[in-house]
Amino acid sequence: MRPFIHINCAMSADGKIAGSERKQVRISSQEDKDRVKSLRRTYDAILVGVGTIVSDDPHLTVKGRTYEENQVRIVIDPKCRVPLDSLVLDDRARTIIAVEDGQKKDVQGAEILECGSPFDLDSLMTQLSQIGIDSILVEGGGETIASFFKNGLVDRYTVFVGSKIIGGRMSPTPADGDGWVMQDGFPLKLTGADILGDGVLLSYDRA
Amino acid sequence: MRPFIHINCAMSADGKIAGSERKQVRISSQEDKDRVKSLRRTYDAILVGVGTIVSDDPHLTVKGRTYEENQVRIVIDPKCRVPLDSLVLDDRARTIIAVEDGQKKDVQGAEILECGSPFDLDSLMTQLSQIGIDSILVEGGGETIASFFKNGLVDRYTVFVGSKIIGGRMSPTPADGDGWVMQDGFPLKLTGADILGDGVLLSYDRA
Repeated sequence: MRPFIHINCAMSADGKIAGSERKQVRISSQEDKDRVKSLRRTYDAILVGVGTIVSDDPHLTVKGRTYEENQVRIVIDPKCRVPLDSLVLDDRARTIIAVEDGQKKDVQGAEILECGSPFDLDSLMTQLSQIGIDSILVEGGGETIASFFKNGLVDRYTVFVGSKIIGGRMSPTPADGDGWVMQDGFPLKLTGADILGDGVLLSYDRA
Repeated sequence: MRPFIHINCAMSADGKIAGSERKQVRISSQEDKDRVKSLRRTYDAILVGVGTIVSDDPHLTVKGRTYEENQVRIVIDPKCRVPLDSLVLDDRARTIIAVEDGQKKDVQGAEILECGSPFDLDSLMTQLSQIGIDSILVEGGGETIASFFKNGLVDRYTVFVGSKIIGGRMSPTPADGDGWVMQDGFPLKLTGADILGDGVLLSYDRA
């Protein structure tokens, strides 16, 4: 048993989720932002990698929602290097930091889950299932998303394609990592292509 | 005066035009391949960078068409390193190799155009106009496409998004280059999102 896993992100028309040096840039339309707000509500938890916490410092909650209404926030952080003043550690929602065995530290505002050594995504998924988390929305970054595809842990993938070109051979993309996620690529089945404001939402299920 | 410039490519659902080490992979659907065949017919010339010639060795012609019917083939190759047995040098169409000043060599099967030093894309566009080439379809790779955006030399951009995830932070994307193509990105105007077989064709004009 593992949770249902939905990966959602936004990329430019040349496949970048940010600019060189991970500089953030507006890619999503207002319509897409509204969609993501609603989407989050339908999942038990929101997950990101610690790289996203360090570079963007998102709070991963929805304004106006209570602690109970907000989704559980999960950060994959093998070496437990989350900055202690990160917004994800505020009191607006429950937060889980997933670390490698032996890397557990005291982090105010978060629970710590040890997930093997080296870090084992399957172990995290099993432990999340055991504490009642049945569905997860993975929001980035590119290294984290690549690790989900490499481990075959993807049920749905949605990507908003914004109408701009960012460029840069070192700019982060939806799926980075060390190389191919699998030989000849991870196959998806297209389920929709919908215009949302000035861009397009592409929806896929696992093939 | 410069030619009308249309950039066309195919990327995976995570923004890659090939895998790590530029390994080719099927991204386009048959419907998209047919579209590209028809599209080529409407342009005076097809342009790629020498990197694409070295890694993929495309012939850039359409089977069954005569020398006169095929589009002019243009290769951006500042140091004139095109392999002399490349298919693009066959006798199925006219071929132009665009090099930096002083890099002109004798290449059987091609005419050479010198375009400044360092290589100047505007100079190439002006010279192409002067020899009667009024429209160009740019087909890659990522470094070449990025240079067109950086120089503001884009009128139309179409990208077929295939339904697979490739992955790899070093895999080539539609627009690579050294960094941002322009501050905050090069703005486009979405003109269409059409399902073509198992993927989606996204169409844009310059904003």
